[in-house]
Amino acid sequence: MTDIDIRPAVVDDIPAIVAMLADDALGAARESPDDLGPYLVAYERLQSDPHQFLMVAMRGDMLVGTLQLSVIAGLSRRGSTRSVIEGVRVHGSERGRGLGQQLIEWAIEESRRQGCQLVQLTSDAARPDAHRFYERLGFVGSHVGFKYQL
Amino acid sequence: MTDIDIRPAVVDDIPAIVAMLADDALGAARESPDDLGPYLVAYERLQSDPHQFLMVAMRGDMLVGTLQLSVIAGLSRRGSTRSVIEGVRVHGSERGRGLGQQLIEWAIEESRRQGCQLVQLTSDAARPDAHRFYERLGFVGSHVGFKYQL
Repeated sequence: MTDIDIRPAVVDDIPAIVAMLADDALGAARESPDDLGPYLVAYERLQSDPHQFLMVAMRGDMLVGTLQLSVIAGLSRRGSTRSVIEGVRVHGSERGRGLGQQLIEWAIEESRRQGCQLVQLTSDAARPDAHRFYERLGFVGSHVGFKYQL
Repeated sequence: MTDIDIRPAVVDDIPAIVAMLADDALGAARESPDDLGPYLVAYERLQSDPHQFLMVAMRGDMLVGTLQLSVIAGLSRRGSTRSVIEGVRVHGSERGRGLGQQLIEWAIEESRRQGCQLVQLTSDAARPDAHRFYERLGFVGSHVGFKYQL
């Protein structure tokens, strides 16, 4: 069994990342894996922003996981920089094998390297398994996450 | 009564912003208004990042409100760009006069101008009044917000 390698995404990874975003109860309704155009535009935006880290997890040649880490400066909490984790996905073939934990632990370590004092994420209230997962890793679900669709 | 002007924060605004961050049930314990050093460092980080908008609301010469808007590109939701609102504070003298709503409406409009498809924020579960406020403005509290202190 080959080890997992977590590395920055390259443009050729986009189809496999989008397939994973869409292969999900909530994602199926809001992604368009047959039309990669908007994802390629978004990838260029991410590449041009030094505070965005779009990562993939590889097992050998197979893309098996992804997440996005954003580093955000701020004044509150004595000028704390925080990181935000978004778009965590693990390929169906890897579920229950610890890859989600490896991805989140990578994000926590990278946040430290980037000088963050706080890591945050929001998880849909319809994903109770995900909530238990984040609590097990030491996250505290202290907040309500609000969204406003434009 | 002078009108409210919402404009980007300048370095001379920092003491008044920090005083507002600290003048709050949760903020009192985690801010240090007597030591502005870390806030000035954080202000420089914000200034050097074109995706961060630290704003203040002025009534005449008086700083009466603040918020931070962050614009974050991403792949999910068909390559949506989202904005995140943090550090919303309204001066005690202004509470109940609609300034909070003006600040959030400014953030929603600026998010549209920046090409965002989604505005998000998290609010401490200990602030039920804030939750009703955001729901009234059209936000949906669909997520749990997790934090991990480094």
